[in-house]
Amino acid sequence: MLIVMKAEATPQQVEDVCEVIRQLGFKPHPMPGATRTAIGITGNQGAIDPTHFEILPGVGEAIRVSKPYKLVGRDLKHDNTIIRIGEAEIGGAEPVIIAGPCAVESYEQTMEIAEVIADAGVKLFRGGAFKPRTSPYSFQGLGEEGLKILAEARDRFGVKIVTEVLDTETADLVEQYADVMQIGARNMQNFSLLRRVGQSRKPVMLKRGMSATLEEFLLAAEYIMAEGNYNVILCERGVRTFADHTRNTLDLSIVPAVKNRSHLPIIVDPSHGTGKRHKVIPMARGSIAVGADGIMVEVHNHPEHALSDGPQALLPDMFKQMVAEVRAIHRVIAETESLVS
Amino acid sequence: MLIVMKAEATPQQVEDVCEVIRQLGFKPHPMPGATRTAIGITGNQGAIDPTHFEILPGVGEAIRVSKPYKLVGRDLKHDNTIIRIGEAEIGGAEPVIIAGPCAVESYEQTMEIAEVIADAGVKLFRGGAFKPRTSPYSFQGLGEEGLKILAEARDRFGVKIVTEVLDTETADLVEQYADVMQIGARNMQNFSLLRRVGQSRKPVMLKRGMSATLEEFLLAAEYIMAEGNYNVILCERGVRTFADHTRNTLDLSIVPAVKNRSHLPIIVDPSHGTGKRHKVIPMARGSIAVGADGIMVEVHNHPEHALSDGPQALLPDMFKQMVAEVRAIHRVIAETESLVS
Amino acid sequence: MLIVMKAEATPQQVEDVCEVIRQLGFKPHPMPGATRTAIGITGNQGAIDPTHFEILPGVGEAIRVSKPYKLVGRDLKHDNTIIRIGEAEIGGAEPVIIAGPCAVESYEQTMEIAEVIADAGVKLFRGGAFKPRTSPYSFQGLGEEGLKILAEARDRFGVKIVTEVLDTETADLVEQYADVMQIGARNMQNFSLLRRVGQSRKPVMLKRGMSATLEEFLLAAEYIMAEGNYNVILCERGVRTFADHTRNTLDLSIVPAVKNRSHLPIIVDPSHGTGKRHKVIPMARGSIAVGADGIMVEVHNHPEHALSDGPQALLPDMFKQMVAEVRAIHRVIAETESLVS
Amino acid sequence: MLIVMKAEATPQQVEDVCEVIRQLGFKPHPMPGATRTAIGITGNQGAIDPTHFEILPGVGEAIRVSKPYKLVGRDLKHDNTIIRIGEAEIGGAEPVIIAGPCAVESYEQTMEIAEVIADAGVKLFRGGAFKPRTSPYSFQGLGEEGLKILAEARDRFGVKIVTEVLDTETADLVEQYADVMQIGARNMQNFSLLRRVGQSRKPVMLKRGMSATLEEFLLAAEYIMAEGNYNVILCERGVRTFADHTRNTLDLSIVPAVKNRSHLPIIVDPSHGTGKRHKVIPMARGSIAVGADGIMVEVHNHPEHALSDGPQALLPDMFKQMVAEVRAIHRVIAETESLVS
Repeated sequence: MLIVMKAEATPQQVEDVCEVIRQLGFKPHPMPGATRTAIGITGNQGAIDPTHFEILPGVGEAIRVSKPYKLVGRDLKHDNTIIRIGEAEIGGAEPVIIAGPCAVESYEQTMEIAEVIADAGVKLFRGGAFKPRTSPYSFQGLGEEGLKILAEARDRFGVKIVTEVLDTETADLVEQYADVMQIGARNMQNFSLLRRVGQSRKPVMLKRGMSATLEEFLLAAEYIMAEGNYNVILCERGVRTFADHTRNTLDLSIVPAVKNRSHLPIIVDPSHGTGKRHKVIPMARGSIAVGADGIMVEVHNHPEHALSDGPQALLPDMFKQMVAEVRAIHRVIAETESLVS
Repeated sequence: MLIVMKAEATPQQVEDVCEVIRQLGFKPHPMPGATRTAIGITGNQGAIDPTHFEILPGVGEAIRVSKPYKLVGRDLKHDNTIIRIGEAEIGGAEPVIIAGPCAVESYEQTMEIAEVIADAGVKLFRGGAFKPRTSPYSFQGLGEEGLKILAEARDRFGVKIVTEVLDTETADLVEQYADVMQIGARNMQNFSLLRRVGQSRKPVMLKRGMSATLEEFLLAAEYIMAEGNYNVILCERGVRTFADHTRNTLDLSIVPAVKNRSHLPIIVDPSHGTGKRHKVIPMARGSIAVGADGIMVEVHNHPEHALSDGPQALLPDMFKQMVAEVRAIHRVIAETESLVS
Repeated sequence: MLIVMKAEATPQQVEDVCEVIRQLGFKPHPMPGATRTAIGITGNQGAIDPTHFEILPGVGEAIRVSKPYKLVGRDLKHDNTIIRIGEAEIGGAEPVIIAGPCAVESYEQTMEIAEVIADAGVKLFRGGAFKPRTSPYSFQGLGEEGLKILAEARDRFGVKIVTEVLDTETADLVEQYADVMQIGARNMQNFSLLRRVGQSRKPVMLKRGMSATLEEFLLAAEYIMAEGNYNVILCERGVRTFADHTRNTLDLSIVPAVKNRSHLPIIVDPSHGTGKRHKVIPMARGSIAVGADGIMVEVHNHPEHALSDGPQALLPDMFKQMVAEVRAIHRVIAETESLVS
Repeated sequence: MLIVMKAEATPQQVEDVCEVIRQLGFKPHPMPGATRTAIGITGNQGAIDPTHFEILPGVGEAIRVSKPYKLVGRDLKHDNTIIRIGEAEIGGAEPVIIAGPCAVESYEQTMEIAEVIADAGVKLFRGGAFKPRTSPYSFQGLGEEGLKILAEARDRFGVKIVTEVLDTETADLVEQYADVMQIGARNMQNFSLLRRVGQSRKPVMLKRGMSATLEEFLLAAEYIMAEGNYNVILCERGVRTFADHTRNTLDLSIVPAVKNRSHLPIIVDPSHGTGKRHKVIPMARGSIAVGADGIMVEVHNHPEHALSDGPQALLPDMFKQMVAEVRAIHRVIAETESLVS
């Protein structure tokens, strides 16, 4: 159920509707839009009688929502969600670029790469302090020491920090240091973790699971939003298929599919999606061309010595080329779209 | 590195080798076999010099292990692992049957189904108290109340309880009630949860992830074993493919593949693997015929009213037929195998 | 549209209905059943008015068929189709075993293997004279010379011959020598070839394409039947997935799915389905246990010298073991099914 | 084996080398490059002694080629292959656009669409006269009548014709009318058909099979080239995966992978790849951005009445927008590439 308030509805009327929803045992989700506020209702098992609400002052209409997701859908909120993190905007007029090493390995490595990133005018710096690893015997990240190094990079270069939260145990720690908390592909349906980051007010970047359908992906975002955190960034990073020429098959067609159904921004990670350096730049260009709101790539100054995922990291020069190319492609789309539409 | 002790090695000699391993900063995993004890070493980043160990009293040989997994592999432990839970044995001479409702829904439903299960001579009862659900708005299980109902079924019918542990937050609670803790497919690479159940002494049933390779599956088991819990039961439950005639594609060929590489028992869940009742019995028979150590199936007295996964639950009569068929097939294999081998 | 004749309808009445169908510009497919004859109609673009037929003498009812396939479906023909080839029966009371080398390589090799096959009481001998090969530079089969060698094996050992027809150009030649014409997985949607073998009166074994859905598989069989050849044997041989522990993922759940929808027999090829010898016997057992009408396996006397697919061929001793096991499993199913049903 | 001639080698010297290759029982494939000619050798089962050739006049070096494909590889021919068809160039400086209806349905429909295409400055017109259809009861194309209509569109609008050849039986007919013969995804491994079009001198567009690996795709092209037809255009059209938000999953990462290994041009078909109109334009832009040499799209004036694949056809206005966008994106890439490289 979705309550769409009239354009002239007052904040008090919105609050009154929310209170009625609470009294019925459900949970209200007021979402202010450009012209009017919509209020999502969650917590109900079946259909709710719309007449409960249609008689309340300020209510425009009460709409049954049949899709399995509500808060992520365009029915509830038509306008694109724009998420602001420091000087960066995700889902806005410009494509966002997030870059950095796969893992924080040392103070020197992190500062060297952060300098490259910041010099290219990039505002969001990524780096893993807690790493999910297939083998229990692989390097698992520097932990809190890694988070402190990231915080220093933020102070020194004015970038904001995107870093992965691996589990609820370390969520408080990560939340304290991160500007954006990343949920990895393996955790896309770790529902306890989704609820935990849903209770945070820090933006969350949610990566698509390795074999997640579009609906499962959106419902994972719904878990986060149902807890009250509406700042969710979706991220395509490739899916598992029979194809063996790349590590994963980057499914760029999910970008227009998400845009069709959801107001949330979606970015693409071509580094994990392909696993090979020479495919990262073409796939980064392709991501922007299909309409993604940005890309996240791995950059390493000495990829041959990287403790994880070296072969897919861009060298600094390749990174600068990529930044130039994706910005140019985005300008073209913006121009042609304004010409035709 | 794997230290194989001589057949005549004393317990003190085994302990002395373990102590040396600890002094080197690594972790010893002594695993007693039928004739002699092997000691796995984990925690090393690179190769270890075997001469450290070959000079110690009681040591037969020190073997380099090149596979990414160690404790799950047959190199370390050649004999099949047999896990005893009450009167049931998993990995032993008889196929194990685990049955019950998808979710614990009420006291009455649980007792009715448990009676059917126990009457068929089945010793392991499954039922979910904490349910992982794709949508935040679906029934999430009865929680501790469900665990208490399961415990009552145990007391009343003499069955042991298999139930899912969803997250580290509720792990203590589940551990307290369960006889076997189940890790669901979505959590196969939830490494914090794997470590947590690895610190338990209750057996763990680990379900294969929806797009997990054999190596990833075995490495997830390795996470549990590396913490010291060697009672791991693997469970195939179907993988994601393009095929649309079943919910998942049950990959029975993983059973001989696991048997070839690992000493751990593997069972099959044909209910989640197919999603449709009329395919459950054939696929249960097929599972035993390919060499699985058992099956886990969903049974419901009123599947049309089930709160989750009703269409795949067997009716009580179908369940009894299935038990008869899988036991008969297992006898055939045991006989022909003894004839030929 | 399906015309079901009354039980007492005369052959002349059946023919009269067929004539009316022809006059309407469509194609009749009379299919005699145990108690009464059904007549399928193909060639119509849209719905046909059932009153055209319901007034004709001997007609029981005229049924609209909404599924995309007609002739393969159980709506048209409820009883299982049994195909007789010499002394062998496919779809009957006993499971059929088809065995032989992947490719006919020489006279000596073929006779040696045929002797092993015939000694085990197996009546159907397989061997490729025309081989589909991924590379243009690989061994493409002996061609007509291979067919002549197969014919000699038939004469000498009293077996019937199953061999692949690769294209319409060589179809006449293959038809002349073969007892069953096999359509390979890569040709499952080679519609011209399907039509060509549909015009033959020799039985056709149709292998499932590497990424064919159940509906596409049944519609490929429909192409053959629509030309008038009703002796179609379906064959599952594994599909393409991300899983890398076998060459293909054998999808045994398609067996009960086919049985549910179609009267056609279905067998399984565990040799191509797994690509590795030690998995062939378990998967052969599993195939029979899920209800397949038989299996087709590769046997080679010197697999290390095989010109194609050596690693998946069974050695003669393994083959004999497999025959014993699958027959024993089939007896169990037949017995338990008669007990319960 | 690959013979690389010296830069100053004469045509007679090239021919002399070819003659020696023929005398050894193999097949020479001379391929002139910008600076020197390379001669591929096919037909050999094992390695050939390079000294046979290194002593001949004009020979630079003889190189063993270990990859399974030879003629398609960059080892043999480093420079990109450019295929000229009338005024169009595939693999050249400009991206090629191929457009038209899925199927030729009538004279009027074809002329109306051809006019739209030609007005947009597009030189290659596609349309199916012979259609591969999953069901034997679906519209199978107008056959020769359709080819004649295409020929009229060529005469009237000055476009060249791309049309599918379904089988060897109708290959002569299609070859007579077509400017480019298309091999559909289902026929990618129809080796007889590949050989037949390999004997033609008309360019061939080869679509990737629904579950073809990169190596299988390139080896299918090798089949065509091994017969002497070097004018092969590869076409990505989506692969089969679990993902259900598009009909197929368009695998754009195969474009840089092909470019890395092969000199052949590759285009993308976003219409079949996505199956939905609103995804065609974004994916067309993405295709060019990842480096494809062009795109092929379906356009229909009345898609709601299309006899096949209506929902994926672009309307004329959308088509014009798409042409503008892909050209603009191509210019950006060309510019940035010239800046950085």
